[in-house]
Amino acid sequence: MSIPRYTGVRTFARLPHTTELGGVDAAVIGVPFDTATSFRPGARFGPEAIRSGSTLLRPYHPAVSVDVLGSLNVVDYGDLVTTPGNAERSAAQIAEGLAPVLDAGAVPVVLGGDHSIVLGELRAHAAAAGEPVGVVLLDAHADTWDEYYGERYFHGTPFRRAVEEGVVAPERSLFAGMRGPLYAESDLEDARAMGFELIQGDELRAIGPGDYSQRVRARVGDGPVVMSFDIDVIDPAFAPGTGTPEVAGLLPHEALVLLRSLAGIEFRGFDVVEVAPPYDSAAQTTAMLAANVAYEMLALTAVARG
Amino acid sequence: MSIPRYTGVRTFARLPHTTELGGVDAAVIGVPFDTATSFRPGARFGPEAIRSGSTLLRPYHPAVSVDVLGSLNVVDYGDLVTTPGNAERSAAQIAEGLAPVLDAGAVPVVLGGDHSIVLGELRAHAAAAGEPVGVVLLDAHADTWDEYYGERYFHGTPFRRAVEEGVVAPERSLFAGMRGPLYAESDLEDARAMGFELIQGDELRAIGPGDYSQRVRARVGDGPVVMSFDIDVIDPAFAPGTGTPEVAGLLPHEALVLLRSLAGIEFRGFDVVEVAPPYDSAAQTTAMLAANVAYEMLALTAVARG
Amino acid sequence: MSIPRYTGVRTFARLPHTTELGGVDAAVIGVPFDTATSFRPGARFGPEAIRSGSTLLRPYHPAVSVDVLGSLNVVDYGDLVTTPGNAERSAAQIAEGLAPVLDAGAVPVVLGGDHSIVLGELRAHAAAAGEPVGVVLLDAHADTWDEYYGERYFHGTPFRRAVEEGVVAPERSLFAGMRGPLYAESDLEDARAMGFELIQGDELRAIGPGDYSQRVRARVGDGPVVMSFDIDVIDPAFAPGTGTPEVAGLLPHEALVLLRSLAGIEFRGFDVVEVAPPYDSAAQTTAMLAANVAYEMLALTAVARG
Amino acid sequence: MSIPRYTGVRTFARLPHTTELGGVDAAVIGVPFDTATSFRPGARFGPEAIRSGSTLLRPYHPAVSVDVLGSLNVVDYGDLVTTPGNAERSAAQIAEGLAPVLDAGAVPVVLGGDHSIVLGELRAHAAAAGEPVGVVLLDAHADTWDEYYGERYFHGTPFRRAVEEGVVAPERSLFAGMRGPLYAESDLEDARAMGFELIQGDELRAIGPGDYSQRVRARVGDGPVVMSFDIDVIDPAFAPGTGTPEVAGLLPHEALVLLRSLAGIEFRGFDVVEVAPPYDSAAQTTAMLAANVAYEMLALTAVARG
Amino acid sequence: MSIPRYTGVRTFARLPHTTELGGVDAAVIGVPFDTATSFRPGARFGPEAIRSGSTLLRPYHPAVSVDVLGSLNVVDYGDLVTTPGNAERSAAQIAEGLAPVLDAGAVPVVLGGDHSIVLGELRAHAAAAGEPVGVVLLDAHADTWDEYYGERYFHGTPFRRAVEEGVVAPERSLFAGMRGPLYAESDLEDARAMGFELIQGDELRAIGPGDYSQRVRARVGDGPVVMSFDIDVIDPAFAPGTGTPEVAGLLPHEALVLLRSLAGIEFRGFDVVEVAPPYDSAAQTTAMLAANVAYEMLALTAVARG
Amino acid sequence: MSIPRYTGVRTFARLPHTTELGGVDAAVIGVPFDTATSFRPGARFGPEAIRSGSTLLRPYHPAVSVDVLGSLNVVDYGDLVTTPGNAERSAAQIAEGLAPVLDAGAVPVVLGGDHSIVLGELRAHAAAAGEPVGVVLLDAHADTWDEYYGERYFHGTPFRRAVEEGVVAPERSLFAGMRGPLYAESDLEDARAMGFELIQGDELRAIGPGDYSQRVRARVGDGPVVMSFDIDVIDPAFAPGTGTPEVAGLLPHEALVLLRSLAGIEFRGFDVVEVAPPYDSAAQTTAMLAANVAYEMLALTAVARG
Repeated sequence: MSIPRYTGVRTFARLPHTTELGGVDAAVIGVPFDTATSFRPGARFGPEAIRSGSTLLRPYHPAVSVDVLGSLNVVDYGDLVTTPGNAERSAAQIAEGLAPVLDAGAVPVVLGGDHSIVLGELRAHAAAAGEPVGVVLLDAHADTWDEYYGERYFHGTPFRRAVEEGVVAPERSLFAGMRGPLYAESDLEDARAMGFELIQGDELRAIGPGDYSQRVRARVGDGPVVMSFDIDVIDPAFAPGTGTPEVAGLLPHEALVLLRSLAGIEFRGFDVVEVAPPYDSAAQTTAMLAANVAYEMLALTAVARG
Repeated sequence: MSIPRYTGVRTFARLPHTTELGGVDAAVIGVPFDTATSFRPGARFGPEAIRSGSTLLRPYHPAVSVDVLGSLNVVDYGDLVTTPGNAERSAAQIAEGLAPVLDAGAVPVVLGGDHSIVLGELRAHAAAAGEPVGVVLLDAHADTWDEYYGERYFHGTPFRRAVEEGVVAPERSLFAGMRGPLYAESDLEDARAMGFELIQGDELRAIGPGDYSQRVRARVGDGPVVMSFDIDVIDPAFAPGTGTPEVAGLLPHEALVLLRSLAGIEFRGFDVVEVAPPYDSAAQTTAMLAANVAYEMLALTAVARG
Repeated sequence: MSIPRYTGVRTFARLPHTTELGGVDAAVIGVPFDTATSFRPGARFGPEAIRSGSTLLRPYHPAVSVDVLGSLNVVDYGDLVTTPGNAERSAAQIAEGLAPVLDAGAVPVVLGGDHSIVLGELRAHAAAAGEPVGVVLLDAHADTWDEYYGERYFHGTPFRRAVEEGVVAPERSLFAGMRGPLYAESDLEDARAMGFELIQGDELRAIGPGDYSQRVRARVGDGPVVMSFDIDVIDPAFAPGTGTPEVAGLLPHEALVLLRSLAGIEFRGFDVVEVAPPYDSAAQTTAMLAANVAYEMLALTAVARG
Repeated sequence: MSIPRYTGVRTFARLPHTTELGGVDAAVIGVPFDTATSFRPGARFGPEAIRSGSTLLRPYHPAVSVDVLGSLNVVDYGDLVTTPGNAERSAAQIAEGLAPVLDAGAVPVVLGGDHSIVLGELRAHAAAAGEPVGVVLLDAHADTWDEYYGERYFHGTPFRRAVEEGVVAPERSLFAGMRGPLYAESDLEDARAMGFELIQGDELRAIGPGDYSQRVRARVGDGPVVMSFDIDVIDPAFAPGTGTPEVAGLLPHEALVLLRSLAGIEFRGFDVVEVAPPYDSAAQTTAMLAANVAYEMLALTAVARG
Repeated sequence: MSIPRYTGVRTFARLPHTTELGGVDAAVIGVPFDTATSFRPGARFGPEAIRSGSTLLRPYHPAVSVDVLGSLNVVDYGDLVTTPGNAERSAAQIAEGLAPVLDAGAVPVVLGGDHSIVLGELRAHAAAAGEPVGVVLLDAHADTWDEYYGERYFHGTPFRRAVEEGVVAPERSLFAGMRGPLYAESDLEDARAMGFELIQGDELRAIGPGDYSQRVRARVGDGPVVMSFDIDVIDPAFAPGTGTPEVAGLLPHEALVLLRSLAGIEFRGFDVVEVAPPYDSAAQTTAMLAANVAYEMLALTAVARG
Repeated sequence: MSIPRYTGVRTFARLPHTTELGGVDAAVIGVPFDTATSFRPGARFGPEAIRSGSTLLRPYHPAVSVDVLGSLNVVDYGDLVTTPGNAERSAAQIAEGLAPVLDAGAVPVVLGGDHSIVLGELRAHAAAAGEPVGVVLLDAHADTWDEYYGERYFHGTPFRRAVEEGVVAPERSLFAGMRGPLYAESDLEDARAMGFELIQGDELRAIGPGDYSQRVRARVGDGPVVMSFDIDVIDPAFAPGTGTPEVAGLLPHEALVLLRSLAGIEFRGFDVVEVAPPYDSAAQTTAMLAANVAYEMLALTAVARG
């Protein structure tokens, strides 16, 4: 409180910006990539906007009684290099870029970027874990389509690619929040046939955090697991700045409570994706919400790391 | 998925644009008229914006398990001709313009335009049905005032005019969602005195879809019935782009569930009105929500037509 | 309804603009001051925007069955003079400016302005009452910090200053709605140590209006009491135009029901603060919501005055 | 400078708001009407926005060395009553509303509203002058069409109606600034055939203020004359908030110099029309520019009144 | 004028939407592609926005005295299919898509899309002409870089690719309007070394339309030639909605006069590219300006076709 | 070109962020302060926005043929600490913060912040120079008023304070660009009486860069001199995001040419102030323009340092 929080170059939550990883518990990392967006682009500016929207984040989280930024050593690692116009190459760059972070034992909190980037994340995690990883996904879409216009690396396809590559463990994964019109009845069935468990949006709202938490824990078990949060799981009034908005999503307090219900699970990594600032409100409420989601992820890390 | 959905001239949900009605089950029809607005104008651009906001609508509706665009023959009929500056003449033009659609046996889904246009719709429906039609209305206002500044054809008066003209059956109509300050206690009483049943907004939220559905079905019976959806029944955070916003409205998922609760009723026609794009969010969330409301109406038609 | 409501110079709810106080029950008063904002400025334009957003307010309040503007003599008193760049002097100017209103027996409904202005209000109320006054606060923050960057008169400090000055009665005050990251665990404890009762945001949502009303009544007792409503208690989707937004706030209908639950308490004054129009939506939904909050305050006054 | 200029209820340039006309030299008057708009509506909120945009106007005009607000007795007269949805009736109301102002010898500076309102102005001026009045028009369009969709009272038709009614003197009128695509070659020829002189936009830019001033003075002679300024004569980058924008208009400094070149002509009245705030920039630059145009009109009045 | 211009599904200038090319003089064609953008994406929505911004375009062009839409048979051909995420494949699709238009003898007016699309255009034109084509380019950038991040098909590289492929004739091409910081002095020299003539922005403003026209005519001679207009040649105040804005560009009237100065040259095709609607003003002034640029291109075609 | 320019934490023009000053030629420094704004606040976010708007700046400046970022050692020094709500203390903090930069021989390019910050800059420069410094000012206002509402440290008063403190040399200063309504004729005369030379906006446009350059050089002579650029000298269409906009300002290319005309003068420091992002366009054109102004200042430094 001795310096106005809006002073200085924008890093996440005013954290130090460094690529030195010694002793680091968690690293916030941008992936400014949006080539693989099927509707509204702009997520390449997601990391910049989320950093800007994180200015007010303070160290102590009263809802979970944790000194998040005091108990963890967290840094802003900057952005990974990607190649606009080339999603396949970018996935490789992301996997390569995350490897040293995981090797250092730090938990990456990735700020997207469109959802295609999760493929690179999963490759890195599977490589580091030596086995496929489970995914806890909150998202309006299951992202298990096969291809778009002949393109296989797209923001609606990463989890199918991940299955094909053996970097995700569907049987230890739970996808929740799906809603909105589909191409065909088979869309969600395909995801289930791959082995994923799905909880659609209406059901998710109905069961509440207690049941959700139980189902996640039952699903992920003791294996390595990561969490992916697509901001479009939230209703567009709260998160207008996103690539493929669907009406009637979760309210923010519903989503935050779902996240908090997972306290104790030791996630290997996180992402919050699909923040598209050109479509955000003048008050940048989407970016601010995404910053708070990332903050909840850090809080989960703080709890898990004791 | 072979062509980006944002390719081509904008029609509703990428449907074919035609005025040929042979074999058509439902026709989406714009009425770009806003002369009769008492506060914020702009609804003349509602049809353009809703078409733009419908780009992501896909054929299959998972929440009701219906292949909406696959099981129905739906077209985008274009816009009806109206006369800016002349609400009375426009009502006549709307009635005239809808007649061939009803004659062809197609269900019109009208995209407004301000709410004054419903008078023309009701004239057409009553003429086609040979009797007054019931109205299921979701709206922040009952729109049964007598006149504004001496003008009798206005967006706050259509249902009173419809009663006077004998084109609506109040005893088979249910109005729900009314909220916000009024001129006098008598405002809602007048509507009831005309024979309409009213459920105010707070009560509507409290009773939920089950009771709502029962009350609608009890009310409309077997007679001809249409549905009118004023976007201002939704809270302004979700639907800022409207002419006379009132705070504290329904949440979108509440409204969609109310619509779905009416499955099985055979509506003769629908409208979604009062979308005023100049006041919409940068992400066009109001227009996108209205497009989804229209999609729910098509789903109701698909269910009703079996 | 004989003249379009958007006709004429903008006063609150089209009320007469006067500083004559004879026979006046309630006076709506702007305080266009925002020097003491720690993040996003702009609340100096709050009174202008709230007046603009009040255009649609009509006399009769159906949810509480009161003819608000018909049963009370309400005026728009204009704005108080303050000094940009000098929060300490402005607090004195506000106290001085409110004195004649309180002397005349009118209930002030203050339109902020940032929350630092409440200190001047409390000084005026305590002086008029001859004793410290209780505060019923709805706010995302407790505003009991000590200082910011060495500045003691700031929008996060007014209630600590008020305690020091003996113009507030913590034991008859109830603060509710607090949420979001803090500097330290002690932040809320400090407020409690001063004697305030706090209900955090999640708890407030859980207990509902019945319990809330009981706890307020039990707390404030028979002593003089005022209400302060910081618009950031509401979720940013509904109130983006504010200085220090926090995600996951109250929904508007939740907040309005809380206000209505206090019917019968005779508040000596009210404020609605922290409306920052530069960050509002294109539809000015924050300002419109604040105007409705002020209207609820007038309704509470109408009920209390019989 | 003793009170922040943004303090208080918004009147034009912080002038007193009164309908008392004794000793008044000039009266700023809003006409919040936009029913007669052929494309983008919203000019009904023009007077509110222009008042808001006039906040920074100070008394002394250095470019013409006149103490505008010090040498003239100017008031904000408020808004005239009009009837939304009825342009014909509104024209009559405007003529009726302006009569007492002209009778009192005050120069009205009308803030529109769409351009249809000029018909009512011309009726009032012709009645007060006892003869048709000349019009000095700066506008992207000549507004001499016959009718739109069968409507004769529309914002593209007022000068033809005025000719038919004998309230304008085409032979003492000069229209300048016309540009943009037309329906047919005859559009401008028709205006010339009515007796108006036209200077198209490219020519106007080329001839500059000296020649323009000479041509205006030669045209208007000694008879009664008014000036009408349609904000769309300015390029849309500077005036985006307007109903029918045309690209490649005048730059503001070009327009202001044209206005100043007319110093010494004793205009009976002025208007600045077609400011449509819903389409304005976030900084309200259109409204601010219109306020400055009105200020130049007051300066012309100050010069003319000596 | 019998129907409001904002009625109906949006085609360019309300032209008929058809892919039938018999007797067609000119076809307006969208290419909604923006994968190859190095900074701000969104040009995929350019065709939609330009169509929307063309609503007010009327048939007769008074500045050049041509009945543009009356003397030519013009259609809206819809959009070409492209592949998001794959610029190389999209270039091939564009070339393929334009072939039947050129075969039919129609002049394509392409609405972009980012500037990478011009490569596909040039391939089609060269194939149809049987020789490389000259390019008259107005653009803030020369777009002759070699690659970005290893990607060779990008919006800064199309003219180098075109040289390599032998589809452009640099010796018959003139590039004008370049401005803004570069990577190195060699950037423009490289373009010149390829054989292109360059006129930088400051020089272009200085020489005016007369000299510009002469230099273009001297350059292009009698060979086949096309024109490409990157909207970023215009100053960002007038064209904010673009991918890589550079300050201090041309004013719109300067650009339109440059276009008109080329009357008589028989262009084989045109494009207007880099309109990125997410960054446009609320009044869509960029899109409206681009629509007018396309209209000037149709006027040039009308003049050339006699 | 090997990494997308939008990758990484935002520093000015992607420069390294450091407070190490060894061998540094120029340091870009933010001063996020806006307490002293008389109208629209928000300039506290100016440095963040200008950094964001500088993303596209590349090393080579073709208009002056200088490799700006290649020939100079430039760093982003971060932001100085200031105290919101206390302009007097902040002036002292700014002077203190700049001292080490000047001691190290680096030229500071300050990104404001409101114009009150120039007082702290002048104190630092005068201390480092051992004498008062000349000021070359481009600004819509002379900022030599005495006080606002009793406040002496305000954004309209810094040059009067600087005269009183003896840190500015009026006889070696030239102020240009003043325009817009004033309080009284004496406003500009007062500035002249203090010894400043003034060129009003209309005159500045008329004389052009040649005369301007001569007058500046004649004025500043050989003594120490700094340049201050208030973004409101530019027309609001190009620079809407500012605190006290005045219509009819300079066009950007006019301003840039004026800056370039000063090549060879060895300025000790620079600032670009009054960028208020909440009022900027969606495309952030004001911030982008300010970034280019700062880039021109670096180019002037590169030329001066050889």
